[in-house]
Amino acid sequence: MSERERYVIGVDYGTLSGRALVVRLSDGAEVGTAVTEYAHAVVSERLPSGGPMLPPDWALQVPSDYVDVLRTAVPAAVAQAGIDPSDVIGIATDFTACTMVPTLADGTPLNEVPGLEYRPHAYVKLWKHHAAQGQADRINDLARARGEEWLPRYGGLISSEWEFAKGLQLLEEDPDTYERMERWVEASDWIVWQLCGTYVRNACAAGYKGILQDGHYPSEEFLAALAPGFARFVADKLDQPIGQLGQRAGGLTAEAAAWTGLPEGIAVAVGNVDAHVAAPAAQAVDHGQMVAIMGTSTCHVMSAGVLREVPGMCGVVDGGIVEGSWGYEAGQSGVGDIFGWFVEHGVPPYVHEAAAAASISVHQHLTALASQQAVGEHGLVALDWHSGNRSVLVDHELSGLVVGQTLATRPEDVYRALIEATAFGARTIIEAFTSSDVPVDELVVAGGLSKNPLLMQIYADVTRLPLSIVGSEQGPALGSALHAAVAAGAYADIRAAAKALGSVRRAVYLPDEARALVYDELFAVFTALHDHFGRRERQIMHGLRAIRRSALASSGEVVDA
Amino acid sequence: MSERERYVIGVDYGTLSGRALVVRLSDGAEVGTAVTEYAHAVVSERLPSGGPMLPPDWALQVPSDYVDVLRTAVPAAVAQAGIDPSDVIGIATDFTACTMVPTLADGTPLNEVPGLEYRPHAYVKLWKHHAAQGQADRINDLARARGEEWLPRYGGLISSEWEFAKGLQLLEEDPDTYERMERWVEASDWIVWQLCGTYVRNACAAGYKGILQDGHYPSEEFLAALAPGFARFVADKLDQPIGQLGQRAGGLTAEAAAWTGLPEGIAVAVGNVDAHVAAPAAQAVDHGQMVAIMGTSTCHVMSAGVLREVPGMCGVVDGGIVEGSWGYEAGQSGVGDIFGWFVEHGVPPYVHEAAAAASISVHQHLTALASQQAVGEHGLVALDWHSGNRSVLVDHELSGLVVGQTLATRPEDVYRALIEATAFGARTIIEAFTSSDVPVDELVVAGGLSKNPLLMQIYADVTRLPLSIVGSEQGPALGSALHAAVAAGAYADIRAAAKALGSVRRAVYLPDEARALVYDELFAVFTALHDHFGRRERQIMHGLRAIRRSALASSGEVVDA
Repeated sequence: MSERERYVIGVDYGTLSGRALVVRLSDGAEVGTAVTEYAHAVVSERLPSGGPMLPPDWALQVPSDYVDVLRTAVPAAVAQAGIDPSDVIGIATDFTACTMVPTLADGTPLNEVPGLEYRPHAYVKLWKHHAAQGQADRINDLARARGEEWLPRYGGLISSEWEFAKGLQLLEEDPDTYERMERWVEASDWIVWQLCGTYVRNACAAGYKGILQDGHYPSEEFLAALAPGFARFVADKLDQPIGQLGQRAGGLTAEAAAWTGLPEGIAVAVGNVDAHVAAPAAQAVDHGQMVAIMGTSTCHVMSAGVLREVPGMCGVVDGGIVEGSWGYEAGQSGVGDIFGWFVEHGVPPYVHEAAAAASISVHQHLTALASQQAVGEHGLVALDWHSGNRSVLVDHELSGLVVGQTLATRPEDVYRALIEATAFGARTIIEAFTSSDVPVDELVVAGGLSKNPLLMQIYADVTRLPLSIVGSEQGPALGSALHAAVAAGAYADIRAAAKALGSVRRAVYLPDEARALVYDELFAVFTALHDHFGRRERQIMHGLRAIRRSALASSGEVVDA
Repeated sequence: MSERERYVIGVDYGTLSGRALVVRLSDGAEVGTAVTEYAHAVVSERLPSGGPMLPPDWALQVPSDYVDVLRTAVPAAVAQAGIDPSDVIGIATDFTACTMVPTLADGTPLNEVPGLEYRPHAYVKLWKHHAAQGQADRINDLARARGEEWLPRYGGLISSEWEFAKGLQLLEEDPDTYERMERWVEASDWIVWQLCGTYVRNACAAGYKGILQDGHYPSEEFLAALAPGFARFVADKLDQPIGQLGQRAGGLTAEAAAWTGLPEGIAVAVGNVDAHVAAPAAQAVDHGQMVAIMGTSTCHVMSAGVLREVPGMCGVVDGGIVEGSWGYEAGQSGVGDIFGWFVEHGVPPYVHEAAAAASISVHQHLTALASQQAVGEHGLVALDWHSGNRSVLVDHELSGLVVGQTLATRPEDVYRALIEATAFGARTIIEAFTSSDVPVDELVVAGGLSKNPLLMQIYADVTRLPLSIVGSEQGPALGSALHAAVAAGAYADIRAAAKALGSVRRAVYLPDEARALVYDELFAVFTALHDHFGRRERQIMHGLRAIRRSALASSGEVVDA
């Protein structure tokens, strides 16, 4: 009689919904999945409790939405799998980051504290809450002036999206709520706290978003110099024991067992971040394997045996992806959303009609037309900064550019040029790593854009790297499930679990040298534009933003310019 | 008993058709008009006699099409006017330029000489025949090297569109046909020759397109240095008595009287060029009145009392617009055609649908949306070089550029930015004149774009000039009629005729200082981009063209890149 099958569950918390995935331990099969959309989605206009319009650039969430995913998506995925819940031995989660929950000492979100539901600062600040740029600027200026050693670990710039900038904004704009806040918790840890009753801070988020380097946060002197009331921010609100990725944070509580229908006491893994958890799902945990999670934006993560300070990277963290290696992160703020914007707002009726006649999407039709072109035939080069630049310039005031248009330029030309622009952006990041002695040998692609063969081939040709494709459609959720398996003791470590449960198709796309040579010429143009508009003459694009803001202010409109 | 009314006829020869206009002398009323399309339109693929495909960049015409306009449009216009043809006292014509007819000594076009109908070089080379760029480059290089005094009169560059480059191409590519050619005739003069039997070379075309300056053409030494067989090009093929604008070239021949139904012997005026003839039609013959004929492209003409060498202008000619003044010309290669290209290839279905729902054109809908914006609100600046740049950079290898796009950019934003780009281009030209001590005090607009109030207001705000609008819908044809009146002796000179028969609405649009101040900021960005891509780093756009040509060549296609 064969042994009973065992299962683990991964839950991937995205920007608008959470997905639960049930994975069979014996072979990594994905046997059931379900999605729950957040009831409050992203709160960017008014609080659920009403009140005035939120200012521009705010993006909040409601923590109870996260718990609803546990109540609905997890049991639904188990039901779809048709398994006995008692055969599930572990659960793990991954989350957007940096997404911050202000809580009491017991983990109660401040927005659930009576009287605070009308305070915007009592809610979750989602990763894309971009209203703390002023605070981020001051953090960076002060860190540079003081020569803080941690600054180069973040490519020289701390983001407005991260824990310190958002926390300082909270202090300065609503000191009462800041006073009531007893913990400032990454959502990736808050959800684990709800599952196992224990607050463990995960090494990944603490390192990349919380400026924890070599066991230390920024000093009290540094914090006091930012704002006197901020001096004890770390000691009072942030500091907490660190859990390594794949470790057991605790056992599932009776309450969480009731929400999920899973057995009480099963392993709950330390929290993790969505992009980073995807690397082991793609078996990309060896040094030099850069994972690109390509969707509306792209996040790059890679493990390496060496610590180097790569200019413009998002961060390097000891054990940030797998224990025992340095985990590097970089990113492109706009990728798929640029193509989506172009198709929605820049493609004429005749293209839509031709696509409809062929029963394919406009993206597919444009891809088919663009595929017939020789490299460089369209005569265009674009900059992929429509959402700003996250690496290596780290400047959200930059904007997009297309050069070379003539009256002969057609929509498929621009579409292809935009794809190429994102590939040039990826090459720029890769070259920043290699020129800092952090070699990149392979590009492993996850995310929706991996399904576009033209796009994949362009990336291979532009980067001269072999492209592998992650095997699972649910990379992050599979990555979480794999961490659950380690936390449950089914595997010794993440590397072993990745080998057993991860999946990847290796070298699906190989670079073509003839095309690569022409791309070298176009990349030289891209680099000339990149350095001109992104380094030497930043004031051109910054100035256009300023003129736009001023024009909107004088015309009485408010907008995120 | 009142005196009988008298009439004159103006015929405007465009790129695809010729228009006849009957004007009443007593009050300038336009009493009849008719258009004849050229049967052969523009010959850019195969000759009417068959044969192989023409090379890229060729654009030919068939001279008999021009005569057909005299046979059909003129009598039709007279019939529409319901007048007695015997009351017509003069006829004048204007033509595209530089459009060249190779003929025998009696004016017979070479393509009508038996045996030559299969020779591409025996046909008319239309103004937009762009296959003589190599010859133009050599003319310019040699003129610079020799320090030819006439070169600065053309802003430092002779165009591939003009008489010498096209003539040299003819010699070098088909020396037999060159040998057979006894005259190399501007179409503006050839049509007058057909009307009155006399070959008079008009001062306008000879000056702007034929390098006739201070009574001299380029020397035999210069021509010999270009190509030994070219030494006697002027003496043998080009030189001819010059007629001033508005002079009588001769009387209508019996044959032409039969074609047109007009009285034999009436005054036929010296030929003229379409843009230049529009100035008196708009009563813009005083110094400082710059006339902009705005359609698919824009031509600027202006009279001045001083001779200055304006960098990048198209040319300055003594009596080039009216006798006794220096006539200046400049131009923008792409204006309305850029907006047309954008609407056709860059505007999504929802905009087309909204326009249709409102029963207006897409141009009108985008204009209405863009009109609601404050200056600078869209955050964009564009370069209007989609068709290259005719002034002040004189570089047809340049291309378009849009900077500042984000995911929030909408079609009306780009549309407005493109309009503004052409206004910035116009301001650049105006500043080239003013900084060369040729003041510009007023902008007088003719052509189809004068009907767009947003566009007109933007031009007024950007240039800080009052904008006047030509009163006639048929500016060039009216301008020709006015020359006919002078040739017939009804007025002493063009200035008097312009005052009596021309019409203009003065200062219809006035600059707004608040908007002009914001435009100063955007114009500074435009100028930074203009000088970067158009002067310091020309190799960026030139390189993209070269890569495109190479890609198309390697993929086996032939195209005008």
